[in-house]
Parts: sequence; structure tokens; C-alpha cells
Amino acid sequence: MCDLKQLVRDIPDFPKKGIIFKDITPVFQDPKGLRKTVAMISDHYKDKKIDIVVGAEARGFILAPTVAFNLGAGFVPVRKPGKLPYEKISMSYDLEYGKDTLEMHKDGIKKGQRVLMVDDLLATGGTMAACCKMVESLGGTVAGCAFLIELTFLNGKNALSKYDIFSLIKY
Amino acid sequence: MCDLKQLVRDIPDFPKKGIIFKDITPVFQDPKGLRKTVAMISDHYKDKKIDIVVGAEARGFILAPTVAFNLGAGFVPVRKPGKLPYEKISMSYDLEYGKDTLEMHKDGIKKGQRVLMVDDLLATGGTMAACCKMVESLGGTVAGCAFLIELTFLNGKNALSKYDIFSLIKY
Repeated sequence: MCDLKQLVRDIPDFPKKGIIFKDITPVFQDPKGLRKTVAMISDHYKDKKIDIVVGAEARGFILAPTVAFNLGAGFVPVRKPGKLPYEKISMSYDLEYGKDTLEMHKDGIKKGQRVLMVDDLLATGGTMAACCKMVESLGGTVAGCAFLIELTFLNGKNALSKYDIFSLIKY
Repeated sequence: MCDLKQLVRDIPDFPKKGIIFKDITPVFQDPKGLRKTVAMISDHYKDKKIDIVVGAEARGFILAPTVAFNLGAGFVPVRKPGKLPYEKISMSYDLEYGKDTLEMHKDGIKKGQRVLMVDDLLATGGTMAACCKMVESLGGTVAGCAFLIELTFLNGKNALSKYDIFSLIKY
């Protein structure tokens, strides 16, 4: 198997000066990288009776449905406001500057379903915490939160201390 | 196997009055629906030596990486302007009112690679035609364009007449 960390590309000064952006597109572009990422997350949760995998627009859409497919689960999207067409719930959360809002279909999770949350990156954890709250407000149980990359120096785990966190690559 | 068309939900008057929106979230929410969608697209292209599967932000991110994983190929994203961090090419295309632009990493496709394009919906075909042009400008060969849904009355096939089109559900 390949070394996932070697596939991540450092981009200096993106999106702004002083930030080193972790570009994960080479991980998914390499068939072995995509395969290993999905296999490692699936293996960690394969005995956890996952019913639904949830991913948030846009980059969470890359891994979450693939893990759902591999686990034999369903996929439910979290989207930006106005994108989902059916009855919805919404959740606002704080950003570094300002607020953001996410939405989910009301019938996306059924009471008692076990839900795996998947995203590419754990930074401050604000987006993921909002997604977990929505799943719980619909009666779902968050069985875990899986990430390709965790930026440990941003302490995102603190915002998600209630949950099982599984990260493939840590910085 | 389940009937995919039965899983699609009609939403009247979304996003505006007079339009019946085809909501595909129930297809992916049902493990059998997700499995069948990915299996049917993969089966159609499994002998076509696909190297890379391309999907466009945001809804194209749901199916394209899953098909890539299932085919043993890599996934390359097409994104909205300013999202990709590395060296890029861009392509503008006409919308009903105005223009839109998409971007792709320059090293996303290597010369001679065989590329499968995947999206959830074929409407007028403008987005997909722009994505195909980008792939070809990087030296890739478009081996086919696969969709979950094709709205045949919008004649999207005309914009993609050079390519093999494979749609699972037609209206």
C-alpha cells in the first residue's frame, strides 16, 4: 500500500499568505491513495453497524459516499443553504469571522440510525460539530467522525470531545 | 436490485415555480440505490481501461469518486474558481443567463489517460461539455459521460455528441 502522507502536497501561501495548504487532490488522483483512504476508514468502522454516512458540501462529498458504498450503507448530504429541495433542518455555527449555516433533509436520518460522519479535513471542528448536532436532532447516533487529515494544532478534537475521532494523517 | 426511478422524488416548484425538481438524495440514502447506481455505471465502463474519473463540484463529487474507487481508477475534481490550490486551467461556458467558469489542476490528467466523466444530472450539457474540453486540453481522452438522470427534453446529448453517453434514468 502507498504512503498517504507522501501524496499530500504542501501549497505555501494558500488561500492567504503564511498558510501552508494541505492539497489532498493527489491522494484521490492516485488509485492506490483513493483505495487506501476508503479502505482504512471502512475497516475502522466495519463492525460498528453503520446505517448512514454523512458528508458536508463540497469536499465532504468526495469521501463520504465512497465510504458509504464500501460499507454497504447509505449516504446523506449536508448542504449550504437553499440547495436541498425537500423539508429541512438547519444549523448555524461560528467561523473565524462571522457565521455559516448548513442544512439537512428532515428525513435524512431515521430515529435510532447509526451514523458515520466523514470529511477530508479536521481543522477547528466547527463544521463537523454542527453536522453532528443536526444528526442528533433527527434522532441519529453519531458512531464516529473520520477524517483524512487532522490539523492537531487547531485542537478540533475539543469541539468533538463526545465522539470517536479517527484521522488517517496528523500534522 | 431496487428500481432507481422509484427512489427519485419529484419536488414541484423548486428551485422556482413551474419546475419539477428531480431530488436524487433518496437514491443515495438507500444503500441499495447507491450500490446499484455505482455498479451500473462501473459495469458499463469496466472494460474501457479507465484511468481517471472526473466529477464537478458539488453534486458530481458524490458519484465520481465512488465510481473511481469501484473501478480501481483515480478521481480528479473540477471546481468553482478559486478553490483549487495548485496550477490550473479554466473554462468558461454559457448559462441560461450569463456565464460560469470551472477549473481543473494542470496535472490532473496526464497525456493519453482515459477519462470517465460522471455527474448526477444531464440537463443542457453545458457544464459537462466544458469539463470534457478541459480534459482534452490536458491531453486526456474522454472515454464516456455517465449520468444518473438524463432530462432528454433538454437535448443535452447535442452538446456532447462526440462522446459515449450513458444515463441510468431518462425523463
